Amino acid sequence: MLDHPLVPGPTSAVERGPWHYGADYISVYFRSEPLSLKRLVPPPFTVDDGMCMAYVCEIISVADSGADMISARPDRTIYQEAAIGAKCSYKDKPGIFFPVMWVTTEWSLLRGILNGYQKRLADGISMTKLHPLNPGLKPISPGARFGGFCVKGPVATLSLEVAVERPGRPSDLPSFGATYGVRKFPATGVGQDGVNEPVEIMKSNSRVSDVWIGTGSVKTALEVGRIEPLYGAVYRSGFTISGSKPLKE
Amino acid sequence: MLDHPLVPGPTSAVERGPWHYGADYISVYFRSEPLSLKRLVPPPFTVDDGMCMAYVCEIISVADSGADMISARPDRTIYQEAAIGAKCSYKDKPGIFFPVMWVTTEWSLLRGILNGYQKRLADGISMTKLHPLNPGLKPISPGARFGGFCVKGPVATLSLEVAVERPGRPSDLPSFGATYGVRKFPATGVGQDGVNEPVEIMKSNSRVSDVWIGTGSVKTALEVGRIEPLYGAVYRSGFTISGSKPLKE
Amino acid sequence: MLDHPLVPGPTSAVERGPWHYGADYISVYFRSEPLSLKRLVPPPFTVDDGMCMAYVCEIISVADSGADMISARPDRTIYQEAAIGAKCSYKDKPGIFFPVMWVTTEWSLLRGILNGYQKRLADGISMTKLHPLNPGLKPISPGARFGGFCVKGPVATLSLEVAVERPGRPSDLPSFGATYGVRKFPATGVGQDGVNEPVEIMKSNSRVSDVWIGTGSVKTALEVGRIEPLYGAVYRSGFTISGSKPLKE
Amino acid sequence: MLDHPLVPGPTSAVERGPWHYGADYISVYFRSEPLSLKRLVPPPFTVDDGMCMAYVCEIISVADSGADMISARPDRTIYQEAAIGAKCSYKDKPGIFFPVMWVTTEWSLLRGILNGYQKRLADGISMTKLHPLNPGLKPISPGARFGGFCVKGPVATLSLEVAVERPGRPSDLPSFGATYGVRKFPATGVGQDGVNEPVEIMKSNSRVSDVWIGTGSVKTALEVGRIEPLYGAVYRSGFTISGSKPLKE
Repeated sequence: MLDHPLVPGPTSAVERGPWHYGADYISVYFRSEPLSLKRLVPPPFTVDDGMCMAYVCEIISVADSGADMISARPDRTIYQEAAIGAKCSYKDKPGIFFPVMWVTTEWSLLRGILNGYQKRLADGISMTKLHPLNPGLKPISPGARFGGFCVKGPVATLSLEVAVERPGRPSDLPSFGATYGVRKFPATGVGQDGVNEPVEIMKSNSRVSDVWIGTGSVKTALEVGRIEPLYGAVYRSGFTISGSKPLKE
Repeated sequence: MLDHPLVPGPTSAVERGPWHYGADYISVYFRSEPLSLKRLVPPPFTVDDGMCMAYVCEIISVADSGADMISARPDRTIYQEAAIGAKCSYKDKPGIFFPVMWVTTEWSLLRGILNGYQKRLADGISMTKLHPLNPGLKPISPGARFGGFCVKGPVATLSLEVAVERPGRPSDLPSFGATYGVRKFPATGVGQDGVNEPVEIMKSNSRVSDVWIGTGSVKTALEVGRIEPLYGAVYRSGFTISGSKPLKE
Repeated sequence: MLDHPLVPGPTSAVERGPWHYGADYISVYFRSEPLSLKRLVPPPFTVDDGMCMAYVCEIISVADSGADMISARPDRTIYQEAAIGAKCSYKDKPGIFFPVMWVTTEWSLLRGILNGYQKRLADGISMTKLHPLNPGLKPISPGARFGGFCVKGPVATLSLEVAVERPGRPSDLPSFGATYGVRKFPATGVGQDGVNEPVEIMKSNSRVSDVWIGTGSVKTALEVGRIEPLYGAVYRSGFTISGSKPLKE
Repeated sequence: MLDHPLVPGPTSAVERGPWHYGADYISVYFRSEPLSLKRLVPPPFTVDDGMCMAYVCEIISVADSGADMISARPDRTIYQEAAIGAKCSYKDKPGIFFPVMWVTTEWSLLRGILNGYQKRLADGISMTKLHPLNPGLKPISPGARFGGFCVKGPVATLSLEVAVERPGRPSDLPSFGATYGVRKFPATGVGQDGVNEPVEIMKSNSRVSDVWIGTGSVKTALEVGRIEPLYGAVYRSGFTISGSKPLKE
C-alpha cells in the first residue's frame, strides 16, 4: 500500500524513526524582548528572560528504517536548517521552543511538523564551510569568521555572523533543557477532527565536539524585538530523536 | 500571535480559505490495472474499472483572505502541479482519488495535506506554454504537441505528451464525480492523538474553457500497472475549494 | 560531435538562432542619476538623461532550430527575467543598455552572454500572473496591482510594483531605440585571446499587445542613484533576435 | 565600474584568481569505447585507450581576491560538481579532457567556461555525506557504500555508486596527467570575433587525503558507449587553479 505522505513508511515523505542526526552548527546566543517573544511562543509554554538562540546548520540525517538511503538516495539524508529558539518553561521545567525552523527539504519539513516542530520550507540556506585541503583556507583559529543566511521568497529571514575567539568545551554551550513543540493538525471545517498537543521532543544520544566560542550578530525578519547578542559559537553535534511525548495536564 | 505553519492565518504557510484556482492543464486519460491501483487507493474508497487521469498544470491561486498576495507576494500565488488520479467510489458515489500530487511550493503542499490531498513536493515541474506574440510559435491547431514532466530526486516521477486534434467542449472531458481524499495526521508515539478522516474535497465555481482534444501518452514511476492511453486534452479550468467534508460512516 | 556549451547546436546549452520570444512584462520607467549610471554603462556608450526602465517578465522562447523543444523539453523554452536598462547613445544613435539582466535558466544566461547581454543567474524571479478562470480574480481593470521581484543569494536584487490606471497602446510605451550590449570574453592569462565587441542586438518582428499604463515603484540593489518613478506598465510583447552586430569604429 | 559577468572582478560573476579548491570526491574509474569518446573529445586532443573517470563532489572554493566570501557570502564558496573525463593526449603529453562538467552555481559555471572547462548548470547534484557524530552512522569502513547523482531537466545525467574495500594512498588513484580544455567563445554572426583556444588548465598545490578504494558502477546520459567499471574511490583533494595556458601549435 502506498503510504500517506505523513504516515512514516518506505513510500512516505517520512521514514519510520528513530531518526539520527549529525550536524554542523553556526549559532548566536542573544537576549531579546520577552514581550515580543510572547507573541511567538504559544501556551502552555511561558517565555523566560528573553534568552534566545539562532543558528544555521547542515544536517546529515538517517532513519533506523532507511540506513541505505545514505548511498542510494543521498538527497534524502542531507538538509540545511535555520532556526530561532526562545528559552521558556513548561510548568517548572525549563526548555526551548522554536517559533520557526526553516529547512530545505520536504522530508525534513514534514517529519518535523509530525514531531511538533514549527517548520517552514526555505528557498535557500547557505553557511560557511571550511575544507582542510583547500590551499586558500586556514584551519579554524582565533579570529576566523563564519556566516550563514536563510532566504524565503524575497526576504532574508535570518542571517548571522560569528567570529570565533577560542576553542571551547561542550559545557561552554548553554543548556536550555527540554525541547518543546506543538503537534498541531487543525480542523478547518465542520465535522473535522484536529490535534493540538504540546509536546516534548524526545532527544537522546546527544554529543558535541569541535566547539569554538566567540562573538556573534544576528538579523531576522521574525519579530523578536531588539536583539542583544551575547556570544557566538561554532560546533558539531549529534543526537537521536525518537518522537515526541504529549504534555498532558 | 505567530501562526503554526498548518493553522491557516496571515503568518502561517496556509492562508485562510476559501481558496480560488485558475489553472492551465495538459492531461492524459488512460486505463491501467485495477489490481495495481488497489495498492494506491486506501479504504473506504473502492477502485473502479482502472480509469485514470494524469496531468501537469500551472495554477494561479488566491485565498479570500489574501487577495493582495497576487501583487505583494506573487510567489505565494503561483505553483505547478503534477498528479495521477484513479476513478473510484465511496459507497455508491463515484469520484476520483489522487494517490499523489506533486507540487512546487510549500504552501500548496501544506494546504493540500490539510484538505486531504496526498501532496508531495516536486523538485521541478515543467510544461508546454504557448505565447500568442512569439513569432516562432503558431496558435494551437490540430497536430500541436504539448508535454510536461515532474522531477523528484533522481527520478522523473511523471511525464506526458499530448497531440491535440480538434477543439472540444468542456463536456468532452470525462467527469469523475467527487474529489476524494484523506485527512491523515498520524499518532507516531505513545499517548499521541491522530486524525484519520476520509473526506470529500468541497469544490465549487467550476468552469472550463479552451478545450482541445487529441491523443496522449504517459510514463510514471508510480506503480499503476500497464498503461493504456485513451486520449489527451489541453484546457483551462477554474474552481474554488472551501475545505473538505468528512465522510462519516 | 558533442557541442561546446557556448557553441550553438543540438547538444550545446544554446540552440542555433534566430531565437523567438513571447513575453509578459511588468515594467517601471524611472529617472535616476546619470553620474551613477556612468559607472554601469561602459564605453563606447554614453549615458543620456538618466531615463531608465526596470522590468520582470516571463518569456516563452524557441529557436528556429529547436521548435520541438516546446513539447519535448518545455524547461528549455520558459524562463523568467528581471533587468534594468539605461537610455544611452552610441555615436548619435539612441538606445538602451542593460547593465544587468537576471535570468532563471542556464540556456538564457549563456545565450544572452553570447549575444552581448550582461546576464546573471537569479536564484528566483516571481511576478504577478492573473488567470481568467480563477473565481477569486478579476480581469485587469483600473486600480489593479502587479508586482515582481528577483532574488540572488541573500539579496532581493530588484523588486517593483505597478498599479494600472488605463488601457494603453503600444505607442504609449517609450521607445529607447537600439538595444546595445558588449560581447566580452576576456583573456585572463598570458597568451590568451579575448573578445571585446560593443554590439547592437539585432531585434526584429516586434509586436506589443495588452498594454496598460499606470504608476510604478522600483527598488534595486544595483547602484543607480536616487530613483524617480515616472510610470508603470503591463503588456505583452514578441520579437525575434537573430544575433548581434559589432559596432566597428 | 560594474564588471561584465565574465570579466573577473568584485562585481562580476567571477572573482579574480588564482582560485583555491577543497573537495570531497566519490569517483568511479571505468573503461568505455574509444570510438564513442572520439565524438566527445575535440581536436587537438586524441582519445587514448577508453580509460575514463566519473565523479560527484562537493567543493569549497575561494579566490585570492575574495577570501572574506567564506563568511560574508558562503553561497559564493560552495558548489557541487559532477563530471566525466576521458584519458587523452595533446601531442605526446597525456592528460584528461572532461566533455562535460555539471555544476550547481552560476559562478562555477562561468568561471569554468572562462578557464576552458565545458561546464553546464545542473538542476541538482546530491552525494553521500557521513557525519562523525550521527548516532546512526558508522565511520567509513570496508563495505561502506557511497552514491551520488546529477539531474538536469527530466534526466539523471550521471549517477554512480562506490563500495569501499580498503584504505588507500593518494598514489592508488590513477594520474591522468595534464587537465585539458578549450576556451571557446564563438563568433555567431557576420563581423564578430571569436576565440578557439585549446588549453591546459594550470593546476598546482595538489594534495589528496582520506583515500578509500573499492568497486564502483556508473550510469550516464552522455554517450560514452559500453561502460566497464574498473574500481571506485572516495577521497578528499585540494588544489589551486591559476588559469589556463593556450596550447599553441
